[in-house]
Amino acid sequence: MRRGYFLDNIEGMHGYVPGEQVNDADVIKLNSNENPYPPSPKVLAAVATAADGALRRYPEPTSDTLRAAAARVYGVSTDQVIAGNGSDELLSMLMRCFVGPGDRVAYATPTYSLYATLVDIQGGTKATVRYSDDFSIPPALARQRAAVTFLCNPNAPSGTLVSRTAIDRLAGAVRGILVVDEAYIDFADGNSATAIPLVRRHDNLIVLRTFSKSFSLAGLRIGLAFASERLIGGMMKVKDSYNLNRLSAVAATTALHDLPWMARNIRRIQRSRATLSIALARLGFQVYPSQANFVLARRLDTDMGRLQRALKTQRILIRHFDVPGLADCLRISVGTPAETTAVVQALRTALRGDA
Amino acid sequence: MRRGYFLDNIEGMHGYVPGEQVNDADVIKLNSNENPYPPSPKVLAAVATAADGALRRYPEPTSDTLRAAAARVYGVSTDQVIAGNGSDELLSMLMRCFVGPGDRVAYATPTYSLYATLVDIQGGTKATVRYSDDFSIPPALARQRAAVTFLCNPNAPSGTLVSRTAIDRLAGAVRGILVVDEAYIDFADGNSATAIPLVRRHDNLIVLRTFSKSFSLAGLRIGLAFASERLIGGMMKVKDSYNLNRLSAVAATTALHDLPWMARNIRRIQRSRATLSIALARLGFQVYPSQANFVLARRLDTDMGRLQRALKTQRILIRHFDVPGLADCLRISVGTPAETTAVVQALRTALRGDA
Repeated sequence: MRRGYFLDNIEGMHGYVPGEQVNDADVIKLNSNENPYPPSPKVLAAVATAADGALRRYPEPTSDTLRAAAARVYGVSTDQVIAGNGSDELLSMLMRCFVGPGDRVAYATPTYSLYATLVDIQGGTKATVRYSDDFSIPPALARQRAAVTFLCNPNAPSGTLVSRTAIDRLAGAVRGILVVDEAYIDFADGNSATAIPLVRRHDNLIVLRTFSKSFSLAGLRIGLAFASERLIGGMMKVKDSYNLNRLSAVAATTALHDLPWMARNIRRIQRSRATLSIALARLGFQVYPSQANFVLARRLDTDMGRLQRALKTQRILIRHFDVPGLADCLRISVGTPAETTAVVQALRTALRGDA
Repeated sequence: MRRGYFLDNIEGMHGYVPGEQVNDADVIKLNSNENPYPPSPKVLAAVATAADGALRRYPEPTSDTLRAAAARVYGVSTDQVIAGNGSDELLSMLMRCFVGPGDRVAYATPTYSLYATLVDIQGGTKATVRYSDDFSIPPALARQRAAVTFLCNPNAPSGTLVSRTAIDRLAGAVRGILVVDEAYIDFADGNSATAIPLVRRHDNLIVLRTFSKSFSLAGLRIGLAFASERLIGGMMKVKDSYNLNRLSAVAATTALHDLPWMARNIRRIQRSRATLSIALARLGFQVYPSQANFVLARRLDTDMGRLQRALKTQRILIRHFDVPGLADCLRISVGTPAETTAVVQALRTALRGDA
């Protein structure tokens, strides 16, 4: 009898389950925090132009054109940036750089459930701390003696934001690497919370950004990581040789040259977020103060799984996580004004049927 | 003093060095085994059409449309296929599935140098065997008690091919996983060497394909792995949630629906390969019998590094590997007939200067 081939930690784990992906145009899809508005027309035009015979050639190995553009926009040097096939790939790369079998990885829960999957893949040990109800950084988080500590800011799925000052303190207090996952930070009011300026002060800090949310480019898988030159140099060794394809690199570079398009969509989403939050509160939900493009809403007297399925029969997809601390919550992505009206109306109807 | 953060194996290793990438139109680029002909016009049209507002949406998590197309073309079931961001990503995924710290990884040398880098990243142990001059599978390869054994077929950089019968025997003889990397197999004469039909007989066999070479899509990073349902299922757990972007998935699916375009380019490259091989032999090189889209040529009396640099001053890029067993060789990608004439002429001139 042969051995099972797979490493024990892989054999024993479950994969990450992403939100359901559908392509029906008549489905209102508020389950994956996608942007309801399309990417910049300049981005689409640049991609169509780049779809030529040059695709037979490999892309830039380290995406230098994109990194230079990102360095200018975010006020760092090119050597403090690395590009990835989505921030997912950057997360996977940093795990392989810093986490060996049995090494501790810390984060406060509830948060983005992919972190747990990444620890399982690497054979690490989860060191979790519970968020209190205000979702501030739990003091115990810094004391976990972790090789890597994750902080999602704004946090998913709560949508809550912690300040740059709090992150500054955390980066100085943890023993190992601090990863601040800023997938949703462009949706925050103001611009004061980003930890990118702190990479100059903390040699153990990695800040992640994605083009999937604010730039409306989830379909092209583009992420950036910001950190000290030394950390970026080490991550480059683990990176696949040509990890970002030509068209995604062109799309991201062009998107960084059309920030007003993104900013306009952000403002529209912020307005719909306010509308949605107020409407949910009127429906009796406890609504967390969201600084992201989704809203987490809690109601203790309702079967949330049933509510989510009721909306699905009306072709409206929202997210329910059947896990401790989130079972009595729904997470609803912020859509267009029309989608916001539709999901609120559907919830109102379903709750009446429930009562 | 803080610790160095990086795992020891990462701290101590060097990254893979890809062939130099240039975008100058007047450079003859024969250093990265790219296809000299563009991808199918149908592929370019499909990509341009798909570059629309739907890019705001995530791609299919497991690339099911592409996998179904690949299953039809290659005669397997969809559950026996997984798609990757280049075969590079599939290589990285399978290392994380099967190789823990200290585990042995076997391959015969010289071969694709990325395998060594992958072992370093994972903290594994290299178990290498030397190829004899005919580049048949060394009998000692099967006896390495390796968690993973790599076989590049046709082998890079020799271009030599081993038979399916020999692979069948090797798959039955190794203790762990056998990975057959068929990046170049579409360039082989006939179609009898591919190991894909063997995945039904060997539950430890993984066959890798790429769209970078025969399909002229290096810029879009698309790879496929074929294996038993059980191996594919396990690899899915390690895969990033949305690892293949929308445009690459569309390009690959369309390419599989226009196989005649690829086949026509293959025939042209096979003809240029014969021309190049004969011309190199006339110039006094020992030429390995290539079944790939490159030719390895040896000459004992010449400084090959100097020869490669001499061609670079004439804007012709070819590859020299300054490593044991390859230092007296050049690897030249097969280009168009005009590029073939140019590289042969440049070599002739440089060798005269050398004499």
